[in-house]
Amino acid sequence: MHVGSVIPRSDRLISKGSRMRETERLELKPIGIIHSPYKDRGQIPYQGRRTKKISRIEVLKEFEEGLQDIGGFSHIIVIYWLHKSQGYHLLVKTPWDDIPHGLFATRSPHRPCPLGLTAVELVAREKNILKAKGLDAIDGSPLLDIKPYILEVDERSVVKSGWLEGKLGKERC
Amino acid sequence: MHVGSVIPRSDRLISKGSRMRETERLELKPIGIIHSPYKDRGQIPYQGRRTKKISRIEVLKEFEEGLQDIGGFSHIIVIYWLHKSQGYHLLVKTPWDDIPHGLFATRSPHRPCPLGLTAVELVAREKNILKAKGLDAIDGSPLLDIKPYILEVDERSVVKSGWLEGKLGKERC
Repeated sequence: MHVGSVIPRSDRLISKGSRMRETERLELKPIGIIHSPYKDRGQIPYQGRRTKKISRIEVLKEFEEGLQDIGGFSHIIVIYWLHKSQGYHLLVKTPWDDIPHGLFATRSPHRPCPLGLTAVELVAREKNILKAKGLDAIDGSPLLDIKPYILEVDERSVVKSGWLEGKLGKERC
Repeated sequence: MHVGSVIPRSDRLISKGSRMRETERLELKPIGIIHSPYKDRGQIPYQGRRTKKISRIEVLKEFEEGLQDIGGFSHIIVIYWLHKSQGYHLLVKTPWDDIPHGLFATRSPHRPCPLGLTAVELVAREKNILKAKGLDAIDGSPLLDIKPYILEVDERSVVKSGWLEGKLGKERC
């Protein structure tokens, strides 16, 4: 089924040599909404993957057909809008360190493009509802995309974690 | 440095019980642009991580401070706008299978929210330019976000890949 067109509103974002001359705002329309046990940021565990709490990812009925075969994947990547994000700083302090770090070297939810991203365990699917474990989104977050987590594509097992190395023991719950 | 505010335009996306009553378009403004060796979709390898080609991720000067400390991470997650995406189907055929699958069970670039997502190897940083290996974005893709890849957060080593299991040997280059 073909459904509409994505209007490439970014056509005027043109690179001339190595410089960007003009930018334009891009528009997204959510494909659903996330129902989670977390009513605000303070309730979210620092590392969502450690929690056993279940979130319900509600995909709009018009997109339900696009979920076909997703049940075969144990993990999915959920992209959502950080709808409680308001403004940002380019240098931020995190729970992991007393020293501020560059925003793009952190996972702070306060970002110029407030896009949240979590790889979660897919526990069950019931029609247009996905039940997932390990999602750290606030209740009511607009859902933007779901992608299958593919080991050969997404997994990186040998990595260096920069300033975060050895600091991730700290956990709120 | 505090820079502006992200206007939470999604406030009216309200869940009543388990249903979404109203949706609204969300706006993003790119933070940079991607310079890659791929001029169109056909040039991109099926699995970008296998390529040794280098892409240049140009972050706008106004965001450069946010890159502080990113050089310590071996891998970063790059989120970008799939600017060549036009329309989508909810059932899609991929290079990996003759049978169509649900769009959200694939990594097809043609999606309702055309957000691209790749974990790449960070090779070097020069001021506001990041050099990365394994990025499968088309040249000129608007850059939306950069997040550090954190093993404890992002890695899932025991996964089931559904319909894709055992099919990923096929490679274009």
